[in-house]
Amino acid sequence: MFKQSLEKVRISHPLVHNITNYVTVNDCANAILACGASPIMADDIGEVTEITSVCNALNINIGTLNERTVKSMLAAGKKAKELSHPVVLDPVGAGASKLRTDTALKIINEVRPDIIRGNISEIKALAGNSFTTKGVDADINDAVTEDNLKDSVAFAKAFSASTNAVIAITGAIDICADKDDAYCIYNGTPMMSDITGTGCQLSAITAAFAAADTSNILISTAAAVCAMGICGEKARERMTALDGNSSYRNYIIDALYRLSGDELEMNSKYEKM
Amino acid sequence: MFKQSLEKVRISHPLVHNITNYVTVNDCANAILACGASPIMADDIGEVTEITSVCNALNINIGTLNERTVKSMLAAGKKAKELSHPVVLDPVGAGASKLRTDTALKIINEVRPDIIRGNISEIKALAGNSFTTKGVDADINDAVTEDNLKDSVAFAKAFSASTNAVIAITGAIDICADKDDAYCIYNGTPMMSDITGTGCQLSAITAAFAAADTSNILISTAAAVCAMGICGEKARERMTALDGNSSYRNYIIDALYRLSGDELEMNSKYEKM
Amino acid sequence: MFKQSLEKVRISHPLVHNITNYVTVNDCANAILACGASPIMADDIGEVTEITSVCNALNINIGTLNERTVKSMLAAGKKAKELSHPVVLDPVGAGASKLRTDTALKIINEVRPDIIRGNISEIKALAGNSFTTKGVDADINDAVTEDNLKDSVAFAKAFSASTNAVIAITGAIDICADKDDAYCIYNGTPMMSDITGTGCQLSAITAAFAAADTSNILISTAAAVCAMGICGEKARERMTALDGNSSYRNYIIDALYRLSGDELEMNSKYEKM
Repeated sequence: MFKQSLEKVRISHPLVHNITNYVTVNDCANAILACGASPIMADDIGEVTEITSVCNALNINIGTLNERTVKSMLAAGKKAKELSHPVVLDPVGAGASKLRTDTALKIINEVRPDIIRGNISEIKALAGNSFTTKGVDADINDAVTEDNLKDSVAFAKAFSASTNAVIAITGAIDICADKDDAYCIYNGTPMMSDITGTGCQLSAITAAFAAADTSNILISTAAAVCAMGICGEKARERMTALDGNSSYRNYIIDALYRLSGDELEMNSKYEKM
Repeated sequence: MFKQSLEKVRISHPLVHNITNYVTVNDCANAILACGASPIMADDIGEVTEITSVCNALNINIGTLNERTVKSMLAAGKKAKELSHPVVLDPVGAGASKLRTDTALKIINEVRPDIIRGNISEIKALAGNSFTTKGVDADINDAVTEDNLKDSVAFAKAFSASTNAVIAITGAIDICADKDDAYCIYNGTPMMSDITGTGCQLSAITAAFAAADTSNILISTAAAVCAMGICGEKARERMTALDGNSSYRNYIIDALYRLSGDELEMNSKYEKM
Repeated sequence: MFKQSLEKVRISHPLVHNITNYVTVNDCANAILACGASPIMADDIGEVTEITSVCNALNINIGTLNERTVKSMLAAGKKAKELSHPVVLDPVGAGASKLRTDTALKIINEVRPDIIRGNISEIKALAGNSFTTKGVDADINDAVTEDNLKDSVAFAKAFSASTNAVIAITGAIDICADKDDAYCIYNGTPMMSDITGTGCQLSAITAAFAAADTSNILISTAAAVCAMGICGEKARERMTALDGNSSYRNYIIDALYRLSGDELEMNSKYEKM
């Protein structure tokens, strides 16, 4: 199932418009290329609707938002929805500042993104249930664990119902949910949080996966989450005694470049709930 | 001939002012260092003319242009020309939005850059012959091939005549042309388009090559294009079964760091037309 | 002594707010993670005081400053000081433009940073003794050498006395000084200047070290400087015949990720003056 999701990206080469932060933007571009899609970054209000019109999906990431780019996010988001392009929102740091929380909520309300991907603290901040975000990392007290998995899935489904978006909550256990169904995904390694931008890259490739198959956004999203996790695992195995987080960053993108549909299918570890 | 071009960069260490996009800016800086020059990035209108005055060349890249930085591009460009510093324009995504096409044309008209480097779709968009740009990548229907090479060279020469700039059109076959002469360059590998920014890096090092030898901008440009292509080939040879586009990116810059004048001379594959 | 400095970062995981340039920002984030801290980048005036309030230190880097971000630097800086968070200023390119020199001086006067880290040309430009900055690199005529070491240390101590900040001047020989004491540090390799951003990364991790132990900012700073230099040495040893500056960049961050407190203690080469 996930095999087809990746293969469709490789065949259709969707063009993904990104309005994203300047911290991890290069990694996002290379991750998009690695999975077989093409990136374009454009954030000026004078061109974002035109640019998004020639693309197949839009990835909005608020990691280094500012007053100027927030306007562009809203304008591009509305245009993309008008054209039925999948829109991903990555609410980086929601809960860490009023500006971030308010902007993410505004995008949710005015754009109605198809997918919202964040860590548990960011998603909880948007759902109004918690304000424990520690910067851009998830708070340990919020972590999704085996113990609270059932509640976490119910929370994700409820948030999906209220936003009409597929919700992807990533962490040690990842949850992808729409209002009815959820995938709990067990791929990935803890080392993925030792580099900046694995979350941003995931949001970027999720836009590519969704663009390549708009028929089932939940499956496209879960496939992207599994792909990223598997690449984290493969990259981890490749590490030598001298390698650290910088080489690990390269190895993850390399693994995505090499990932086949069969590998994705075979190595995905998930259960449906 | 190209040997001397590289060696002059290594001896004179030109300082290159870059007003460039935030996607590939780090790679541009490291590529400039790799070939023996020094980068400085500065885009505020309050300092760009002063910064460009202490530099030896200016590289303008519109990859993530905005209203603020376009003003800086124009101001820095005019100052650089006033001081006879070589100016490179990389019209990233020209044709993909009116803002990009208009901005590139405005820079061409008001600054009169010495070198314009883009893919064939971008250059055609500026020459008014095509509007097939697919995002920031060249459209396959525009590709320079053996079959249309003669016409493509004539097109490049004509665009050079009308802009008074050396035109570098890069793709499977690269063309560097002024109004009278052209180099058709056969270095490089298809994998170079699997990473973001090889074009941006090329524009950045072209500025360094041009600064190191302003006596023949066409030769400086062709030398930079060959250098980038050869590094793409060397990096390709170095790849292991686990490496993907992220490692490839590193290997290209590494190869540029190691490239000797003799290697450049020996491995350049071109014909003059 | 330096051993404890690093170990405190690894235990306390300080959160570092960075207002920094878009050239080296990804490397800064990964370097902060490599030493055991967490980065957050935020530069909008609408959130910087709130973001800095949930952090443990602030790193201000003027590498690609603009009118908008300068306001944010001042606002965040004042808030951080109000909360007694250590503030680092990296005056990239001070002396290369009036805007950079004036902005750095304004931050020094209005924020009163705890640490100022730059190359000798930048620091001299701020101290009013020289205007030989060549772009963002130190001018060779300014270099700290064995011959002028005594004078350079005296200069650093005097500038510390006038600014009330620990001064870190990095180059072939590094000097970390407060008004009374100085560490002259002999770690590092010349190749560190062949990549962009080793200075920026150092400023970023210095903020993490200072946050983890505010009791002696001079020692925290000297520990960070030694750590960066040792990682430069270790990365150099790892290089193969094909590696260039791009792999070297990865190896330095990798080395920081792997650096133990004992290694730092044993390999630090310094004298107190």
